[in-house]
Amino acid sequence: MPISDRVQKSLVEGSWIRRIWEEGFSLKQQYGEENIFDLSLGNPVMEPPAEFHQELRKLVENPLPGMHRYMPNAGYPETRAAVAAQLSLETGMKFTMNDIVMTCGAGGALNIAIKTILNPGDEVIIFAPYFPEYIAYPDHHGGVAKVLPTDEHFIPRLDAVEAAIGVKTKAVLINSPNNPTGVIYSEDFIHQLGELLSKKEAQYGTQIFLISDEPYRKIIYDGCKYPQVWSHYRQSIVVTSHSKDLALPGERIGYVAVHPDCSHREELVAGLIYCNRTLYTNAPALMQHVVRHLQSVTVSVAEYQRKRDFLYDHLNEMGYSVVKPEGAFYMFPKSPLEDEVAFVRELQQWRVLTVPGRGFGSPGYFRISYCIHDRTLEGSLAGFAKAAQRFNLC
Amino acid sequence: MPISDRVQKSLVEGSWIRRIWEEGFSLKQQYGEENIFDLSLGNPVMEPPAEFHQELRKLVENPLPGMHRYMPNAGYPETRAAVAAQLSLETGMKFTMNDIVMTCGAGGALNIAIKTILNPGDEVIIFAPYFPEYIAYPDHHGGVAKVLPTDEHFIPRLDAVEAAIGVKTKAVLINSPNNPTGVIYSEDFIHQLGELLSKKEAQYGTQIFLISDEPYRKIIYDGCKYPQVWSHYRQSIVVTSHSKDLALPGERIGYVAVHPDCSHREELVAGLIYCNRTLYTNAPALMQHVVRHLQSVTVSVAEYQRKRDFLYDHLNEMGYSVVKPEGAFYMFPKSPLEDEVAFVRELQQWRVLTVPGRGFGSPGYFRISYCIHDRTLEGSLAGFAKAAQRFNLC
Repeated sequence: MPISDRVQKSLVEGSWIRRIWEEGFSLKQQYGEENIFDLSLGNPVMEPPAEFHQELRKLVENPLPGMHRYMPNAGYPETRAAVAAQLSLETGMKFTMNDIVMTCGAGGALNIAIKTILNPGDEVIIFAPYFPEYIAYPDHHGGVAKVLPTDEHFIPRLDAVEAAIGVKTKAVLINSPNNPTGVIYSEDFIHQLGELLSKKEAQYGTQIFLISDEPYRKIIYDGCKYPQVWSHYRQSIVVTSHSKDLALPGERIGYVAVHPDCSHREELVAGLIYCNRTLYTNAPALMQHVVRHLQSVTVSVAEYQRKRDFLYDHLNEMGYSVVKPEGAFYMFPKSPLEDEVAFVRELQQWRVLTVPGRGFGSPGYFRISYCIHDRTLEGSLAGFAKAAQRFNLC
Repeated sequence: MPISDRVQKSLVEGSWIRRIWEEGFSLKQQYGEENIFDLSLGNPVMEPPAEFHQELRKLVENPLPGMHRYMPNAGYPETRAAVAAQLSLETGMKFTMNDIVMTCGAGGALNIAIKTILNPGDEVIIFAPYFPEYIAYPDHHGGVAKVLPTDEHFIPRLDAVEAAIGVKTKAVLINSPNNPTGVIYSEDFIHQLGELLSKKEAQYGTQIFLISDEPYRKIIYDGCKYPQVWSHYRQSIVVTSHSKDLALPGERIGYVAVHPDCSHREELVAGLIYCNRTLYTNAPALMQHVVRHLQSVTVSVAEYQRKRDFLYDHLNEMGYSVVKPEGAFYMFPKSPLEDEVAFVRELQQWRVLTVPGRGFGSPGYFRISYCIHDRTLEGSLAGFAKAAQRFNLC
């Protein structure tokens, strides 16, 4: 075998998102792109905000000497300080640049966080439905993702978490606002989770990190306030990116932030920087210069909320069972057929592309991404309606 | 222990480049930056060529719709095609975009190449002196770096390679033009290495990849032609970046290229793309757009050659024993003291910063980086001369 057994296995198992993308590609070639309603990818069509273009233009028209050179492996001090200032503002806590490491997106951030803390065989608890790469990240670094179920509102069950934590548990990984469900964990839930982790740390004499993956932190609806992990648990690590809040997914600009009062903080940050250097997940220079000035800027959340309302109301009316998303730009309706792959294929017949829930560890559901043009969203309704009629949802 | 034992161990062992950097930082604070002659880092002061600024300005002034969105995990097809066209031109072989995966620099490229091919315990043969991260990359992915010596001109010994290859050998990793020595492996050497690997593949019934790390491919002196691996061995993978040829190290834009006739090529490339996605070493979007049009552009090699000649001639005159570099922007002189750390400290007394050879697996030597301003290079001569006098080199 020319390639590694593990990689080979992952290729054979494949990714559902990728499979749907490939099938969609054929459909688009067959029927024309405008006749396929692709709700399968979390790749926002929204352009970055005007402030981004201004900053970028300013830099490119007046380049700073050496602005494309290597910077320290943690990122530019000025950018890290700007991120820390924004976090301090949002949380009322005191972050400094020493709590921040700039990375190649949130995926890079998660990889280095997990690599830094895991010994072989250590466990990372994740919750289904989950972002598919959550399985790969611990696996890359000799660890294991331990998958726990969530309740009917996609909120983790604390009793299940309590039962699952053992001496090998090194981290609990949460993602709120959530991909693929759009739910937000409440302040109360996070508080209880923090209490539970503290209790378990004391019980086992171990350290358990709460890793919060927050690329959708700023995309929340109905005027809600975002429940931060920081005030509820000291051993917290936040990983995030500007992929969604500044609509820059292709630029791979993100960061890890560590709780300022985390125990062994310096050692942890030194480990993150080492892994950033040797996994080579450093953030690109130009984007570090740009986002330094955009920490308080966000794409139009109202625009996403409008899309959510439009789609949610229509699906609801058609009889679909959907938990109403409070953030991000996904919905995760229950499949009218137990076999959701069959239902996703049914939607494909109507040229609507979605992703089966089993791709996220939750068969019986399917994921819709609505970070798309209104015309695509509107065009998809006929297909959703036909499929609903076929399975007598109303 | 809050962090992983392996990462902890790497932190304690530290990096000599980093240690010198930290000591240099203190010296600069003490004496002023202009009074410290820092030849320790491979971070070119040369600005990117004019064509780079033109392309970047063009794009930023007339942004393409969606140009910051996610692209396929292998990179933009147009960029991959441009890289393939340039490789075809340079080699006379027929590369297509399907042989190319765009990555976060050459470091990202090496990580995904090694992860794609390695099973636990597999070996990657490397040669001392080596780029320090060559030890970390196989270790990250469950493999082992097996270090072999080189001869007095820093060329690997084929008999040692032959003796070292076993059933666990998955790859031989070479780096030419070399960091830290500046030597270039001859066409004849690469041909013999290719023959040897073919022989060993047949003997063991295994596949052995030749991975060639080529960020300095275009920085070669004296009008030499660069000896490519492609025509000498089919199981070849080239990893590289535009960090040095376009002076963009901070932008982390690189790629992996696979031999078009490599066996199991499709599976190998699929594995590379999977690892790029899940290690999150994707190349940033904007830089992919830019370098697409700059495949035939290079910084001024004459400028580097001038710096090499200046430094080499002076060091030679002072009595230092140096193999004359044929490319890249490093020299690796023999330390006048057996304990090269003591000699590097001696140079520090004269405010000249270099890196001990043991950081590259070769005690008894030290590395000089000359990708710096002429004033720094000129300023360092007094220190080199004083140290030479002290140890009676002339």
